[in-house]
Amino acid sequence: MIGKNWRTLLRRGDGYFQLCILLLIVLEMAGVALGDPLPSWNEGPAKQAVVGFVRTVTDKSGPQYVPPEKRIATFDNDGTLWAEQPIPFQGFFTFDRVKALAPQHPEWKEKQPFKAILENDMKALAASGEKGAMEIIMTTHAAMTTEEFEKIVKDWLATAKHPRFKRPFTDLIYQPMLELLAYLRENGFKTYIVSGGGVEFMRPWTEKVYSIPPEQVVGSSVKLKLEMRDGKPVLMRLPEIDFIDDGPGKPVGIQKFIGRRPIAAFGNSDGDLQMLQWTAAGEGPRLMLLVHHTDAEREWAYDPRSSIQRFDKALDEAQRRSWTVVDMKKDWKKVFPF
Amino acid sequence: MIGKNWRTLLRRGDGYFQLCILLLIVLEMAGVALGDPLPSWNEGPAKQAVVGFVRTVTDKSGPQYVPPEKRIATFDNDGTLWAEQPIPFQGFFTFDRVKALAPQHPEWKEKQPFKAILENDMKALAASGEKGAMEIIMTTHAAMTTEEFEKIVKDWLATAKHPRFKRPFTDLIYQPMLELLAYLRENGFKTYIVSGGGVEFMRPWTEKVYSIPPEQVVGSSVKLKLEMRDGKPVLMRLPEIDFIDDGPGKPVGIQKFIGRRPIAAFGNSDGDLQMLQWTAAGEGPRLMLLVHHTDAEREWAYDPRSSIQRFDKALDEAQRRSWTVVDMKKDWKKVFPF
Repeated sequence: MIGKNWRTLLRRGDGYFQLCILLLIVLEMAGVALGDPLPSWNEGPAKQAVVGFVRTVTDKSGPQYVPPEKRIATFDNDGTLWAEQPIPFQGFFTFDRVKALAPQHPEWKEKQPFKAILENDMKALAASGEKGAMEIIMTTHAAMTTEEFEKIVKDWLATAKHPRFKRPFTDLIYQPMLELLAYLRENGFKTYIVSGGGVEFMRPWTEKVYSIPPEQVVGSSVKLKLEMRDGKPVLMRLPEIDFIDDGPGKPVGIQKFIGRRPIAAFGNSDGDLQMLQWTAAGEGPRLMLLVHHTDAEREWAYDPRSSIQRFDKALDEAQRRSWTVVDMKKDWKKVFPF
Repeated sequence: MIGKNWRTLLRRGDGYFQLCILLLIVLEMAGVALGDPLPSWNEGPAKQAVVGFVRTVTDKSGPQYVPPEKRIATFDNDGTLWAEQPIPFQGFFTFDRVKALAPQHPEWKEKQPFKAILENDMKALAASGEKGAMEIIMTTHAAMTTEEFEKIVKDWLATAKHPRFKRPFTDLIYQPMLELLAYLRENGFKTYIVSGGGVEFMRPWTEKVYSIPPEQVVGSSVKLKLEMRDGKPVLMRLPEIDFIDDGPGKPVGIQKFIGRRPIAAFGNSDGDLQMLQWTAAGEGPRLMLLVHHTDAEREWAYDPRSSIQRFDKALDEAQRRSWTVVDMKKDWKKVFPF
């Protein structure tokens, strides 16, 4: 459709000028398709909700305009920006660390929960419970400097492969979410990760993979302590939890680290419910979006009520409050970038 | 001085063109003076160090170029961005809160340390020690929601006046530091506050006063807890310290909240020493700057060795390691914006 302004321009002017105008019209019409900011999203209510929200808050003359400094968007990571099956990927990192450290700990061959990991006995590992999990995390994630830990994470990511896809874990990111992150940033949003995962497990790679800089990553953490080593200050990672950024911890993490309430929040499990509730409770336009894993073929399909990543409470609330739910199978043209 | 390129241009072209070029030259020469990014700084080693550092790290063809995402600058607040005499301004806020709450607590008339504040007895207050201070802070800063606390801070700032200058506390900010913040930001730096003060005491006003948004303020904090109130989520401020962002806590706060080492750090007391050491210990060009309060007339002059805000260790280290020390009386043309 050629707009009124174009028609007025076409009526005026000489042949050369008219040619230029026609060229512009063609480019503009092509741009409607080429310029789709979310090409991996199928048309449908989820995509409409996202685009409609962004148009609403950026429309300066509209009643629901939000100034750029308040355009804060928070994203869960595991299952929202990258995959999380068969276990969250930090779990693979942790198991590989136990195996790498095992030669220095011959006693682990007979000591749970380490024995379970060395023998790939997931049943025995589960039986060790939260206490066992904490012991493993502290053994593999603490008692080293922040710089040493960063190097271990980077080295692991450079070589570790996902068992199903035989690819680096950072390949298993969602193409539609990459487009969404870029689209929000182009519209003046500051995009944050707010994840239950370890903050220092994520920061070494989020800038390269998601264009999210370390200072915009909020996560769980161990306590840090400043020490002098050979006359140089280092930060030691202590074997003690500082903060768990999950469930009711997510609004706390948002307030601690960002100090502003998001206007858009993205998650995929009950651990994100409070973040979405906190976002929804603010005044003005809001976007709450949940990714529902429904695609066993291209990714995974999980039952909201029985998988490790419980999702039933969040899904119920989404339906009750008309939050946006992405049906991965239906709404995404493409899942991974590869 | 007219550069070679200008002369080449002047030799060419017609009269009208030459006139335009001459006009550009005049504007450029005027700009040398008008465009001084630090007009409230006297010429001298401190100003030279700042300008030289910024030129070095932004010179794309130079050997010490730093990409914009790594240009992190951290500023102490009390005594570095705004004044801190006769006591840090959060102290005035705290005393005023005790007085405002006193009618609900008749027992305070006889109970230390509250009695000391109600009677303006600073000696008795000092005698109550750290335990007394903590009791006062918890009584005045906790057991309310984050939104309630924000409102209390804003209301206080709108009416409270500094006893010496009879002006709002947010008037007692340093004009040269405002220029420095703006100059760094124009050169691609992200400017952060890293202060021992309460993070939620600062965030309500730092954006307006320093153009530093809440998410770039790191400070001390109490624990937060998500609760439901009338079906709406709120964050309660608990009477329990979460984090002390001072001394060895500053590098910890930087790592926790920013996750990158600064390349420039600004302070004024021994509580900033570790932040400057942490900054200095990174690779590549670095700027460490300390403000020395030497101006009793326009601001205050404090003895590094005997004032409450001890400064002798940091000053010794600055001299030993050739960090930049601003002599307020000599280096600053103007102290406050008013």
